[in-house]
Amino acid sequence: MSDFDFESRIVDIPDYPEPGVVFKDITPLFDDADALRAVIDAIADNFADKGITKVVGAEARGFMVGVPVAYRLGCGFVPARKPGKLPRETFSQSYSLEYGTDELQIHQDALTPDDRVLIVDDLVATGGTAVATGKLAEQSGASVAGFAFILELCFLHPRDVIAEAYDQEVFTLVKVD
Amino acid sequence: MSDFDFESRIVDIPDYPEPGVVFKDITPLFDDADALRAVIDAIADNFADKGITKVVGAEARGFMVGVPVAYRLGCGFVPARKPGKLPRETFSQSYSLEYGTDELQIHQDALTPDDRVLIVDDLVATGGTAVATGKLAEQSGASVAGFAFILELCFLHPRDVIAEAYDQEVFTLVKVD
Repeated sequence: MSDFDFESRIVDIPDYPEPGVVFKDITPLFDDADALRAVIDAIADNFADKGITKVVGAEARGFMVGVPVAYRLGCGFVPARKPGKLPRETFSQSYSLEYGTDELQIHQDALTPDDRVLIVDDLVATGGTAVATGKLAEQSGASVAGFAFILELCFLHPRDVIAEAYDQEVFTLVKVD
Repeated sequence: MSDFDFESRIVDIPDYPEPGVVFKDITPLFDDADALRAVIDAIADNFADKGITKVVGAEARGFMVGVPVAYRLGCGFVPARKPGKLPRETFSQSYSLEYGTDELQIHQDALTPDDRVLIVDDLVATGGTAVATGKLAEQSGASVAGFAFILELCFLHPRDVIAEAYDQEVFTLVKVD
């Protein structure tokens, strides 16, 4: 495990985007060269010997974490995008938000049944997006082999939600109680 | 220069998103491990000795190219985002589209006057977004040191537009005449 102090680089923004919510700004972990290297290496090192063949990340901050992790692991990266963004035939997965639903899509030929997928994002809150991204990958016949996030909002209990669907490792760099 | 055949991995989608337009799908360059490595290494190798300190990429496909290039160069990455996505104080830059205008923002503290910035994106078409991203970086006092794209739509003459604003290298992997 990295001894880099990730937590000190995350900036709390009170009452953003609405009163009572504390937004966690992770951009300072990317604009500093040492922090970016430490983030990507910590995740990639953890999953280096676990047979990952593809990394899947959701638009848009999941791209920021997922592509360099895929590069470091020697894997491909598959973007999970909002509807209407991918031009070829897609699989779709809907999931619940606090108010309403959202949907993610991947290209149908992006994964195969041989793939072992690592799901990545910047932050895991309720775990709903993470599970939906896993279900989306499974529509190709691929298997979900793990989850990685920079930041875990433990008070929302995302591990419980993920554990109901997947008996796989959930790796996070910063835990917020 | 890499001898990887990037062009064969780009999929033409006729009449997408509207009749008469040929969409260039670059996702196959990311979901294949060898292609992803070749793309990132070709761009990073080209700029390795040119004093780049920060990479700036525009939402969302610019994140897919820019973050791994920054990682490989040992630089930080600064996201240029649509309005309302960055929580702290921002600089803004508007630019013209075929119909109407668009706007990109960066955090005010993400770049300093000492930074030499590489602007990256998946595709350069008219060059308008690239120049706007450069102007956005310059609002911090940083200097623009180069541009890198996977795909260049030469028939739209983006180099002419960029050259009017910047006397800096424009590096592309695939040229479409």
